[in-house]
Amino acid sequence: MSKEIRIFSPATVANVACGFDVLGFCLDTIGDDMVIRKTEGKGIKITKIEGYDLPFEPEKNVAGVSALAMYEALQPDCGFEIEIYKKIKPGSGIGSSSASASGSVFGMNALLGNPLNKTELTKYAMKGEALASNCEHADNIAPGIFGGFTLVKSVNPLQVLQLPTPSDLYATLIHPQIEIKTSESRAILPNKIPLQNAITQWANVGSLVHGLHTSDYELIKTALNDVVIEPYRKQLIPHFNDVKSSALSAGALGCAISGSGPSIFVLSKGEKTAKKVEESIRSAYSKTDIVFETYVSKINTEGIKRIDD
Amino acid sequence: MSKEIRIFSPATVANVACGFDVLGFCLDTIGDDMVIRKTEGKGIKITKIEGYDLPFEPEKNVAGVSALAMYEALQPDCGFEIEIYKKIKPGSGIGSSSASASGSVFGMNALLGNPLNKTELTKYAMKGEALASNCEHADNIAPGIFGGFTLVKSVNPLQVLQLPTPSDLYATLIHPQIEIKTSESRAILPNKIPLQNAITQWANVGSLVHGLHTSDYELIKTALNDVVIEPYRKQLIPHFNDVKSSALSAGALGCAISGSGPSIFVLSKGEKTAKKVEESIRSAYSKTDIVFETYVSKINTEGIKRIDD
Repeated sequence: MSKEIRIFSPATVANVACGFDVLGFCLDTIGDDMVIRKTEGKGIKITKIEGYDLPFEPEKNVAGVSALAMYEALQPDCGFEIEIYKKIKPGSGIGSSSASASGSVFGMNALLGNPLNKTELTKYAMKGEALASNCEHADNIAPGIFGGFTLVKSVNPLQVLQLPTPSDLYATLIHPQIEIKTSESRAILPNKIPLQNAITQWANVGSLVHGLHTSDYELIKTALNDVVIEPYRKQLIPHFNDVKSSALSAGALGCAISGSGPSIFVLSKGEKTAKKVEESIRSAYSKTDIVFETYVSKINTEGIKRIDD
Repeated sequence: MSKEIRIFSPATVANVACGFDVLGFCLDTIGDDMVIRKTEGKGIKITKIEGYDLPFEPEKNVAGVSALAMYEALQPDCGFEIEIYKKIKPGSGIGSSSASASGSVFGMNALLGNPLNKTELTKYAMKGEALASNCEHADNIAPGIFGGFTLVKSVNPLQVLQLPTPSDLYATLIHPQIEIKTSESRAILPNKIPLQNAITQWANVGSLVHGLHTSDYELIKTALNDVVIEPYRKQLIPHFNDVKSSALSAGALGCAISGSGPSIFVLSKGEKTAKKVEESIRSAYSKTDIVFETYVSKINTEGIKRIDD
C-alpha cells in the first residue's frame, strides 16, 4: 500500500436552483490538489498550504478538523501529514471548504485501504465543513465525494442518494470577486415561506430528479427554477439578473446562485452551448467594475480522485 | 369505429404523502364504469346514473362539464350520451369526481379516433374537476388518465410526468364513512410553512421519485413522509394515528391521507404485506364506532381503460 497519495478535490455546486440544502453536483475543471502522507508518528499535521492564507493548526483548518474526527474514530496505528494546494478561493460559493474537508478524509481512507464507505466519509467531512459554516451541511460534501448529482435525503441519519448524470450536461460558472458572508446569506432568508411556493419548488425537485433519470433536457430546463431562495439571495449578488438573462438568451437550460453565492452557475446541453454561455456572461459582466472569473466544466461523475496513479 | 364504448375509470390517490398537490397514483380494483355513446343528435346528454344520486344536467355534473368543454373545443359532427355507473363514493378522498370527469372525455376521445393526447384529455377533465373542488387540479386526474405514478409539474401550462411504478408495490386503503368538506380541508392549511419543513418535504419528493426509478423500496419507505400537510389534516380524520401505527407495525412502507381524506392509503411491498396491513387496520378501526371499508389494490399502470373489447 502506498504511503502517500495525491488527490484532486473538485469544486461543487450546492442547491442546483430548486433543491436548496439538498441537491448538488460536482465540477471537473476546478478544484484543489492535496497530498496526504502516512507518518510513523501519531496525529494529524498540516505541513504545507499554498494558494491561500489558511491556518496550519488542524483544529482551525477545515481539512484538519475532518481529518481529526476520522482519526479519533478509527484510531489508526499511524499519523498523517496533509499538504493543501488551494485553488478554489474561500468564500466563492463553489464548495471551497468542502473540498478541503473532503480531501483529507478521502486521502486518509485510501491510505488505510478504504475501510469507510462514501456515506461515512461524508459524515467526517461534514465535521470540517461545520467549522466554516457553523452547521453540518452535506450539500457540497456529498457531490464531491460521490461525484455527479447528489441528493442529501437527510442529515440525521445521513442518507445520500447518487442521481444519474445525463452525458451531455455542462456547467458554466461565473465568480464575481466580492465577499458574501455565509451568515449574511443565511440571515436574509425567511423562516417561513408561502405554501404555494413550496409546492412549486417540490414539483421542480421531483421533475429535476425525473429529468436526470430520463436525460430529458427540456424537463431539466423547466425544473431549474428557484422561487424560494433566489428572490432573497440575488440581492446580494450584483448584476445577477443580467447574468441570468444573458445565459438564458445564449441557450442555457438554467441559471441560478451556486450555494450561497457569489458564484452563479449555468447548466447547458453540450459543451458548445456552455462556451457560448460563458462568452455571453463574460460580455455582460465586463460592463460592470467587478473583477470576475468564469469556467466551463463537464459534470464530474467520479468526484474526488487520485491523480498520482 | 364503434359507436359505443364501456370504460373503467379508476379511483386515484393524490398527494402520496410528501407530494401535496403534485403527486398521485392510480388504483386497480376500485373505480366507476361508464358507457359513452355517439349519437346523431348534437350535444352532451347524461342518460343514466346508478350508484349515487348525482345531477343529470351536464352543466351540473362533473362528467358533463368536462365533456362539454371538450365538445365545444372539438366541435365534432355528432353528439354523445353518457351513462355513469358510480361505485366510488363522492367525498371519499380517492378521486371520485376526477374519475367521472376523466371517464367522459376519455370515452369521447376514443369514439372520435383519439385526436387528443393524454395531457390534452387531462386539461378537459380538469374543467369538470373544477366544478367539484372550485379550482383546477390535476393531481387525481393525471394518475387516472396516465396510469401509475404521476407528477403534475405545473398546471399552467399543464405538464404531467409519468413516473415509473415498481412492480411489487401494492396499496391498501381504508375509507372511514365520514364527511370532510374539501373547503374545510383546504381552510385548515396554513398559508405559510416553515422553510425547514419545506426542505424536508422536497428532499422526500426527490427521494420518492428516485426510489420509483430505482425500485428502491427502503428509500420509498423513508420518503413517504409528510411533515407539511398531515399535521393539520389528520385532525379531521378520527383515529388516523391508530391506522398509521397499525399499518407500519404490519410492515407497510408508508401510510398517509389520500387526497384531502377521509380515506387513508398505505403502500406496501408485495400483496401479502398489503393484505396483512388491511387486516391490521380493519382490526384497529373495528374498535371505533365509525363504519368503514377497506381495499387492497395493485398500482394500476394502465389508467382508464376500455372494458368492452
